[in-house]
Amino acid sequence: MSKRLYGVDLGGTTVKMGLFDTEGNVLTKWEIPTVKDQGGKQILPDIAEAIKKNMAENNIAKEDVIGVGIGVPGPVDKDGVIYKAANLGWGVFSVRNTLSDLLDGIKVEAGNDANVAALGEMWKGGGKGHKNMVAVTLGTGVGGGIIIDGKILTGAHGAGGEIGHMHVRDGETRTCGCGNHGCFEQYASATGLANMAKEHFAGFKGNTCLKADDLTAKAVFDGVKAGDDLCKEIAAEYGEYLGKGLAVITSTIDPEALVIGGGVSKAGQILIDCLKPAFIENVFADCRDCDIKLATLGNDAGTYGAAKLVL
Amino acid sequence: MSKRLYGVDLGGTTVKMGLFDTEGNVLTKWEIPTVKDQGGKQILPDIAEAIKKNMAENNIAKEDVIGVGIGVPGPVDKDGVIYKAANLGWGVFSVRNTLSDLLDGIKVEAGNDANVAALGEMWKGGGKGHKNMVAVTLGTGVGGGIIIDGKILTGAHGAGGEIGHMHVRDGETRTCGCGNHGCFEQYASATGLANMAKEHFAGFKGNTCLKADDLTAKAVFDGVKAGDDLCKEIAAEYGEYLGKGLAVITSTIDPEALVIGGGVSKAGQILIDCLKPAFIENVFADCRDCDIKLATLGNDAGTYGAAKLVL
Repeated sequence: MSKRLYGVDLGGTTVKMGLFDTEGNVLTKWEIPTVKDQGGKQILPDIAEAIKKNMAENNIAKEDVIGVGIGVPGPVDKDGVIYKAANLGWGVFSVRNTLSDLLDGIKVEAGNDANVAALGEMWKGGGKGHKNMVAVTLGTGVGGGIIIDGKILTGAHGAGGEIGHMHVRDGETRTCGCGNHGCFEQYASATGLANMAKEHFAGFKGNTCLKADDLTAKAVFDGVKAGDDLCKEIAAEYGEYLGKGLAVITSTIDPEALVIGGGVSKAGQILIDCLKPAFIENVFADCRDCDIKLATLGNDAGTYGAAKLVL
Repeated sequence: MSKRLYGVDLGGTTVKMGLFDTEGNVLTKWEIPTVKDQGGKQILPDIAEAIKKNMAENNIAKEDVIGVGIGVPGPVDKDGVIYKAANLGWGVFSVRNTLSDLLDGIKVEAGNDANVAALGEMWKGGGKGHKNMVAVTLGTGVGGGIIIDGKILTGAHGAGGEIGHMHVRDGETRTCGCGNHGCFEQYASATGLANMAKEHFAGFKGNTCLKADDLTAKAVFDGVKAGDDLCKEIAAEYGEYLGKGLAVITSTIDPEALVIGGGVSKAGQILIDCLKPAFIENVFADCRDCDIKLATLGNDAGTYGAAKLVL
């Protein structure tokens, strides 16, 4: 029988799971709930059980499973040890070894969820064909993953690719979720964009399609597409922060491509158009032709990347 | 006979060369001039001849040479192709293949000089014991090298680790050597420090040991050590830029250590003391215990790192 892989994306509410062949084709995908009671001690047993059940249903023998990859919401070191996952109630332990034991010794690899999603986009998504890329997720916060020579840059504390917390602005009075001031995430996230929209909306006297109760990323970019002046003004400021921040990362790491995902990226090409001027102006000349692309896997990036971990 | 390595650090005026054993002990080191006439076409033949001569003198057979590593002043890709080296008059060609042919097929590896020096510091210098580190060179400009899992992060255009050109300040009117405005190098280099010293000196009314004709990094840090108020003021501003920029890099890459070299680093521990407050304030909390160390190999980092390239 052909060899198989499992990819597991462990989130705060659900666990997304996928059965893959070695070419990266998804054969089945399904979800189970994340049971967080009692310090989340049931989470890995539930995952192991779901995998064993899937193996039985599909007549997959243990020796046909190359391995199980798992992305978890917290910093994970290169040995698969998670350092904290406040979301899940977990302490410090080896996710890799624990899950492998529950699966009777099947090979397991674990990584941080944002990093694993980046690997997924490299393998089968917007970053396909690039072995050196940075994935950027623009959601409630800003996440990221750096892929070097086809592998995740894990970092000394499992915090590699935490680009949302690079300092980009002095004199910020609001505190970032991380405790610092002036983090990239405070401006480049959907939340940052909504804050900018609020400020611009409050001071705007002309006609606009924006409404006070819907100052979201979607509303702003829909307005830009419709030619709304206020929306163009907001998107320009947002693009300035986003483009400049991405230029900093690109000048340092010199990736082949940046792959942009997360809720804000649903705006599509117009998002790239609005960040491009500031990116070009501020990036080191040698790195200027770095390809800026949209992520394509959406919520499946995590399972793809998790499966790729074991290849 | 024991195996041997050669490390070559190609500079604009001289070529530094070293013969090493596989443990990284330097057995002989010497220099030859860099002959830049006629588009630098004599440079690699001169290097090959110098190596062959050294082999003959030391009775080293071809099969005892594991390889020759070379650091060159320009962007070099992972295949050893240099893209430009304006300094040397070179165009685009494979340094690796050309030098290997000149050495009758001995294995050659080539890298960018700043990246190669970073590798040297990892192997035998201030970064010893760290497989994930960033080397920062504070000289006339700011250079850098990023080491991930013991290997150079080369980048898509050989510009990995070009941290001097990350954008750190808006509204800068002076143009950086790279053509952009507000690059890290404009503030964190010895030149940037001298510019700050000039500005502070011009407006200062009190007593100071600084002299208008000697506003150098050395003079400033000597003054700090002597308790001079003006020097402390200048060093504080410089440390703010330097610490903040290093925090950005650290938050993104999460290295185990930063290793600081170059002329400015001759100030010693006091340099680290002056950048530390801004570093701690701005770095992502998970990466805060990143070790900040001084480089120890000085001008020999390049030959050590070049030798390490072939291991």
